[in-house]
Amino acid sequence: MNKFLAKQVLVEFYNCSKDIIDDVNKIEILMNKAVLKANATIIKSTFHKFAPQGVSGVVVIAESHFAIHTWPEHNFASVDLYTCGTTIDENKAILYLKEQFNASKFQSKTLNRGNLLEINKNI
Amino acid sequence: MNKFLAKQVLVEFYNCSKDIIDDVNKIEILMNKAVLKANATIIKSTFHKFAPQGVSGVVVIAESHFAIHTWPEHNFASVDLYTCGTTIDENKAILYLKEQFNASKFQSKTLNRGNLLEINKNI
Repeated sequence: MNKFLAKQVLVEFYNCSKDIIDDVNKIEILMNKAVLKANATIIKSTFHKFAPQGVSGVVVIAESHFAIHTWPEHNFASVDLYTCGTTIDENKAILYLKEQFNASKFQSKTLNRGNLLEINKNI
Repeated sequence: MNKFLAKQVLVEFYNCSKDIIDDVNKIEILMNKAVLKANATIIKSTFHKFAPQGVSGVVVIAESHFAIHTWPEHNFASVDLYTCGTTIDENKAILYLKEQFNASKFQSKTLNRGNLLEINKNI
């Protein structure tokens, strides 16, 4: 039995193309496509363009959410892939986004969410 | 000068009231109020009720996002408070949500996002 309810992969993309990560329409399309690449299911998405620059947005998925915040002035994008279930392949989403952002590299950290031992101790 | 672009507080709420964390309208209201408690600015929010149970949702804020996923069957709610800037008080949001969920306890972990040393190394 799985010991955790969910998994969260935090990804930092460096040296991204400024024009791409400042384009809210493009980012919304790419994040939705990343959900499909990961074999997850889109429910709905909401994205926002900041002035003078930067994009924030989230795709709510059947398996939790994908979120992004971009800092075009730093060529930097920060992405969260929060998922549950065993059928999701986050790596495919990450590699797809790296390519689409023209990022020179990424760093990722994986965390578990919802420790069932802890949850059951507290009920 | 700040060394990071943003901060992310991951919070796990245990032993929550099942009825509350399974009520999508209530959760959307509480998450939006939590944004205000933290002194942050709501941009837009999107929430979804799963069948047979559970709620997922995100409030996009001027300072990044607040997200939630609930597992009523485990009396458990998992919340992310992703913020930038120095004017946000996440603790006020956390204590407000703990009270509103009737949670017996919470655990939180704070991470930094967007390491400027790393970003500047890669430009």
